[in-house]
Amino acid sequence: PQFVPQPSAMASPAEPNRNPKYDPKKPHITDLPITRANWYKHINWLNVFFIIGIPVMGCVTALWTPLRLKTAIWAVVYYFWTGLGITAGYHRLWAHKSYSARLPLKLFLAAVGGGAVEGSIRWWSRDHRAHHRYTDTNKDPYSVRKGLLYSHIGWMVMKQNPKRIGRTDITDLNEDPVVVWQHRHYLKVVLFMGLIFPTLTAGLGWGDWMGGFIYAGILRIFFVQQATFCVNSLAHWLGEQPFDDRNSPRDHIITAFVTLGEGYHNFHHEFPSDYRNAITWYQYDPTKWCIWLWGKLGLAYNLKQFRSNEIEKGRVQQLQKKLDQKRAQLDWGIPLEQLPVIEWDDYVEQVNNGRGLVAIAGIVHDVTDFINEHPGGKALIRSGLGKDATAMFNGGVYLHSNAAHNLLSTMRVGVIRGGCEVEIWKRAQRENKDVDYVKD
Amino acid sequence: PQFVPQPSAMASPAEPNRNPKYDPKKPHITDLPITRANWYKHINWLNVFFIIGIPVMGCVTALWTPLRLKTAIWAVVYYFWTGLGITAGYHRLWAHKSYSARLPLKLFLAAVGGGAVEGSIRWWSRDHRAHHRYTDTNKDPYSVRKGLLYSHIGWMVMKQNPKRIGRTDITDLNEDPVVVWQHRHYLKVVLFMGLIFPTLTAGLGWGDWMGGFIYAGILRIFFVQQATFCVNSLAHWLGEQPFDDRNSPRDHIITAFVTLGEGYHNFHHEFPSDYRNAITWYQYDPTKWCIWLWGKLGLAYNLKQFRSNEIEKGRVQQLQKKLDQKRAQLDWGIPLEQLPVIEWDDYVEQVNNGRGLVAIAGIVHDVTDFINEHPGGKALIRSGLGKDATAMFNGGVYLHSNAAHNLLSTMRVGVIRGGCEVEIWKRAQRENKDVDYVKD
Ligand code: HEM
Ligand code: HEM
Ligand SMILES: [Fe+2]
Ligand SMILES: [Fe+2]
Ligand SMILES: [Fe+2]
Ligand SMILES: [Fe+2]
Repeated sequence: PQFVPQPSAMASPAEPNRNPKYDPKKPHITDLPITRANWYKHINWLNVFFIIGIPVMGCVTALWTPLRLKTAIWAVVYYFWTGLGITAGYHRLWAHKSYSARLPLKLFLAAVGGGAVEGSIRWWSRDHRAHHRYTDTNKDPYSVRKGLLYSHIGWMVMKQNPKRIGRTDITDLNEDPVVVWQHRHYLKVVLFMGLIFPTLTAGLGWGDWMGGFIYAGILRIFFVQQATFCVNSLAHWLGEQPFDDRNSPRDHIITAFVTLGEGYHNFHHEFPSDYRNAITWYQYDPTKWCIWLWGKLGLAYNLKQFRSNEIEKGRVQQLQKKLDQKRAQLDWGIPLEQLPVIEWDDYVEQVNNGRGLVAIAGIVHDVTDFINEHPGGKALIRSGLGKDATAMFNGGVYLHSNAAHNLLSTMRVGVIRGGCEVEIWKRAQRENKDVDYVKD
Repeated sequence: PQFVPQPSAMASPAEPNRNPKYDPKKPHITDLPITRANWYKHINWLNVFFIIGIPVMGCVTALWTPLRLKTAIWAVVYYFWTGLGITAGYHRLWAHKSYSARLPLKLFLAAVGGGAVEGSIRWWSRDHRAHHRYTDTNKDPYSVRKGLLYSHIGWMVMKQNPKRIGRTDITDLNEDPVVVWQHRHYLKVVLFMGLIFPTLTAGLGWGDWMGGFIYAGILRIFFVQQATFCVNSLAHWLGEQPFDDRNSPRDHIITAFVTLGEGYHNFHHEFPSDYRNAITWYQYDPTKWCIWLWGKLGLAYNLKQFRSNEIEKGRVQQLQKKLDQKRAQLDWGIPLEQLPVIEWDDYVEQVNNGRGLVAIAGIVHDVTDFINEHPGGKALIRSGLGKDATAMFNGGVYLHSNAAHNLLSTMRVGVIRGGCEVEIWKRAQRENKDVDYVKD
């Protein structure tokens, strides 16, 4: 049989690079170690300017820009819109196709998503698909294994080798006119939706041009970026792992609050094509609520959900895994196959010689030191010595607790050849042997 | 083999009855149904007087008895002493032998335990041992299966057929001089420790004779009784069952607060000879703290603890049980043995005829409806159709999540005769058959 041919529906290898000077034959800067002479070449200065420089300038300018109530409200509202552009648009609609949207909703999401200043849908989704396909590996563009700060912001601040990022299939995005249009006119979209539109609204609306620019523009961008970056950092670092603990994604309410509901990230990595991140009504997932509402309004359709049966299966399996780990740490007594095999006669003889042995379910237990401790009294436990006490122990006299069974298993010293006394007796019958040892 | 003889170290059958007029030959009142003519004969009027009558009288009198601060403090202190007499003395020391006590401590516990007015150690412990041995059955003196109110107080208010209560071994108690002495002089002990001593203390101490009698005497008795009765009612009704859910005992912090730490009752019924009811430091078990302190002071010794390994085993087993119950409610796909067996050739032919079948781990799956939904893209899943996609699915192309495996199992339609493709191939080799169907 020959080698299985790989399908070609992939982004071309040079795709993640937007630098026209890039030559795939020359060694990439990331292949060289960081030194005192070249460190500045390792930094992506454009991104530093966008992610750190502008916000710092915004903060400084804010010191002498008065904040008006209307502008504050507008900044918060626009924060939620642009945040939703990323979570409901970039992430759940385009990167994961977890639902479908009609054109007006798509245009809205492509516009406000652009206003969050996190790259084009096409670029963002390709990286995000690589993040899911190669989670925690070197091909993951923002692997938390490289450090919390790296996954939060480092991967943008430092230059990346475009060959490193895992390849993914983005044929569907290349066929989506809204995605293609937004990618082609990305700079215009960013400038307009990121800064001009929020400034215009505040300026034309209530004359606060400067406040609109600083608060609803620059500082709002900063907060939306930091919040959504938390999905790559905090959501892979803080919380529980109810579905799978082989990789880093985690569920936490704090991350959910920061990220408009993207904080149930262990669930999300396990069920990425589900339009929900939180599945119970009391968990915080406003992105899900919006998509659901758009569905009711006819703007969204084909909202995908994993069957609850499949989700619960995942939960049960993970609980089982944790339980097995806990079980493996406990002492379950000498395994039966390591115990010596004892003849019934020898067992009875040893008891007659004074050892406190009791046979239960075909296994001989040494209870000598336990007789005085026995919660059911000395007399009862003594009445089982040298006998087959299986029935007695299991309800004939007293139905012992689970704890008593566990304790019993720590007292194992041997296995009776042929099993319980009744088995011995049957075997003797079969073999027509003398059955005089079945006394009492 | 003959019938196993029962040991005789038991309380004699007539033991629980303290009524000299009782004739075991006459039908007992509890054997007759309650009617309008005989209802008052079903009631244990003496107990009604002690448990309900006196407290009511105390409450009424309290209305014109001023409560002085010193008396209030004394009543609370004496409440804790007499409560401890029951929990640390009657219960953990005598009924369960979970530790041993030196004579001064025994005398103290026998005295203050008497002051709680709940019967003699001997009577209380025998009933309590029956409660543990026959929990929730008809032989349980205060079975919660007969109702919460019955387990709390009904079993004392209503007459009991002494033959009903399960028999238990109290030889050890009959050999303990403190127990025998307290039983013999029970009335004197109750009167002195229940009423005279608390009154004397308040009277001689700060001249509050009436307050001492009403508050530290009568009302304190009432509260101590109701609190400790909660171990029989609330502790079998409210809370979690981390160790065993076959019977009624439960763990709850509220019950623990009310009962000086006896509220971890699921643990207690599973490990009754452990001197602790709560095993972690942050759980509320002041009775345990006192016993531990007495141990440090040399007043108590031989404090029994179950090995933490055994306790954790019980917890793991109970979690496993709950998980198995949850698992049983889920749909795990058609069991393999119910699937039709398909020849490899037939599988390939069906795919050539247009069905979307994929063989993974020797099982054929129908993914026709899933191809367009596949999160990894149509192309990749199509590349597996008609082939043995085991390696592809399990990391060769993409290491699918647990959720994907679960989903896959719902798509099963058949089993390949001979297992995976490589197995078919090997078998063909063995059988010297033509292997032309192993293409690509
Ligand atoms: C062989 C004959 C035995 C008989 C007839 C017998 C009988 C009893 C009875 C009647 C009780 C109830 C105590 C009470 O609450 O009053 C009891 C409790 C108990 N017995 Fe045995 N016992 C036997 C052997 C053993 C052995 C070999 C073990 C060793 C593990 C054992 C461990 C326990 C434990 C831990 C309890 C405490 C209650 C519980 O956890 O269920 N017994 N037994
Ligand atoms: C037979 C060859 C298959 C190949 C090569 C393949 C490949 C892939 C790839 C590359 C992804 C990653 C998607 C991404 O995050 O970009 C993926 C995801 C997924 N595939 Fe497949 N797939 C195959 C068959 C199947 C089948 C038969 C199922 C049916 C259960 C399936 C279910 C899924 C699911 C549920 C995901 C989402 C991610 C996950 O849960 O792991 N795949 N697949
Ligand atoms: Fe992630
Ligand atoms: Fe995602
Ligand atoms: Fe109980
Ligand atoms: Fe108990």
